[in-house]
Amino acid sequence: VVTTAGAEDTVTGGVSGRPTDAIIDLLGALAYGELSAFDHLAEDARMAPTLAARAKLSAVAATEFEHHCRLSDRLGELGATPEDAMAPFVAAVETYHALTEPATWAEAVVKAYVGDGLAADFYREIAAYTDAGTAALISGVLDEGGRGEFAVSEVRRELGERPGEAGRLALFARRLVGEAISQTQHVLADRDSLTALLLAGRQTTVGLPALFARLTERHGERMAALGLGN
Amino acid sequence: VVTTAGAEDTVTGGVSGRPTDAIIDLLGALAYGELSAFDHLAEDARMAPTLAARAKLSAVAATEFEHHCRLSDRLGELGATPEDAMAPFVAAVETYHALTEPATWAEAVVKAYVGDGLAADFYREIAAYTDAGTAALISGVLDEGGRGEFAVSEVRRELGERPGEAGRLALFARRLVGEAISQTQHVLADRDSLTALLLAGRQTTVGLPALFARLTERHGERMAALGLGN
Repeated sequence: VVTTAGAEDTVTGGVSGRPTDAIIDLLGALAYGELSAFDHLAEDARMAPTLAARAKLSAVAATEFEHHCRLSDRLGELGATPEDAMAPFVAAVETYHALTEPATWAEAVVKAYVGDGLAADFYREIAAYTDAGTAALISGVLDEGGRGEFAVSEVRRELGERPGEAGRLALFARRLVGEAISQTQHVLADRDSLTALLLAGRQTTVGLPALFARLTERHGERMAALGLGN
Repeated sequence: VVTTAGAEDTVTGGVSGRPTDAIIDLLGALAYGELSAFDHLAEDARMAPTLAARAKLSAVAATEFEHHCRLSDRLGELGATPEDAMAPFVAAVETYHALTEPATWAEAVVKAYVGDGLAADFYREIAAYTDAGTAALISGVLDEGGRGEFAVSEVRRELGERPGEAGRLALFARRLVGEAISQTQHVLADRDSLTALLLAGRQTTVGLPALFARLTERHGERMAALGLGN
């Protein structure tokens, strides 16, 4: 177990500035998340009601793959083997996807926006405790690239045609949040380095409670934009 | 039914140089083929034995999507709606994929190389009868981008470990060819414009028999490279 003092060393990379386990873990988790998001989105895109909508979600998938490549390249530059860095996170990410498989196009779109949005917010928060180069790379690959507008228009159209779907979609979104939290807890329990990174945040004015409050607030904003808020 | 003279007009685009039905059909078929190849390859990549191999086939998939975008853009420039141009070819392409779903990683790799290679050769042959701009675009998106070497090393490794698989993989490759021919025939029976484009080739020194001979020869070369030749 890493102490708080040790955690600080991990975060900053120490005086030598060498990449630490935490940075490798963070980039590895993100790299696998993007690779997995890529093929799940590509599969989900097949549920699209039109070829135009399918091409749109496929474009989101292709962008995720491009992000995966950037993260893999960075892992290579840091002297890590991308596959080794990704391996510890395969089970958690795949479990999340298996438990949140969308059954309809509207669910697919909600997942691409709400689920990936939540994950992106979480990674962005962690990235704030890393060095500037890593934080910039992570912030770049977490750009939502216009998928918000697409999701909003698709879900609002669906709710216009089938207003009764709102409850089911809101429940699905709740499942996304629950499974995301659950799998994140599994990962943190397993990876001391990432826990240390998060704990480092407790020493700042922000802290964990504030972090969760921000994640919850942004999640609420996305739900409201979709017309699924309270 | 288009006459041979009419076919020639279709092929050259006529004196005005406007895009013809045949060009729109050709780009539409190819654009849908790439979109569909994208998500099937993304799905097949999940069968990879390692994360590195999965990332490799995923990269092929992402490239197909980029090609889809170029073809879509070109359709837009020609005044066509990409979705409308793609729609007539959805059934044939999806039937091909449904009847050639790979059951193993080795089959996935054989399909990505042998099946897509055969399709690419066929499109390239048709493209030769179109205007220079269209032919260049099509030739660009049909670049195999190194997937040959990847397929060869993956299949040869598989055959090294399980020599008994050679027969099954060769049979699978034969199925790929059979279903590709079958679906191409359905499409040509349905689309006079594409048939006209092919028939135009009969007036040249090459002709259809020579075309099929070339396709067969290149297919044989790919099979031999995989260690699946006779």
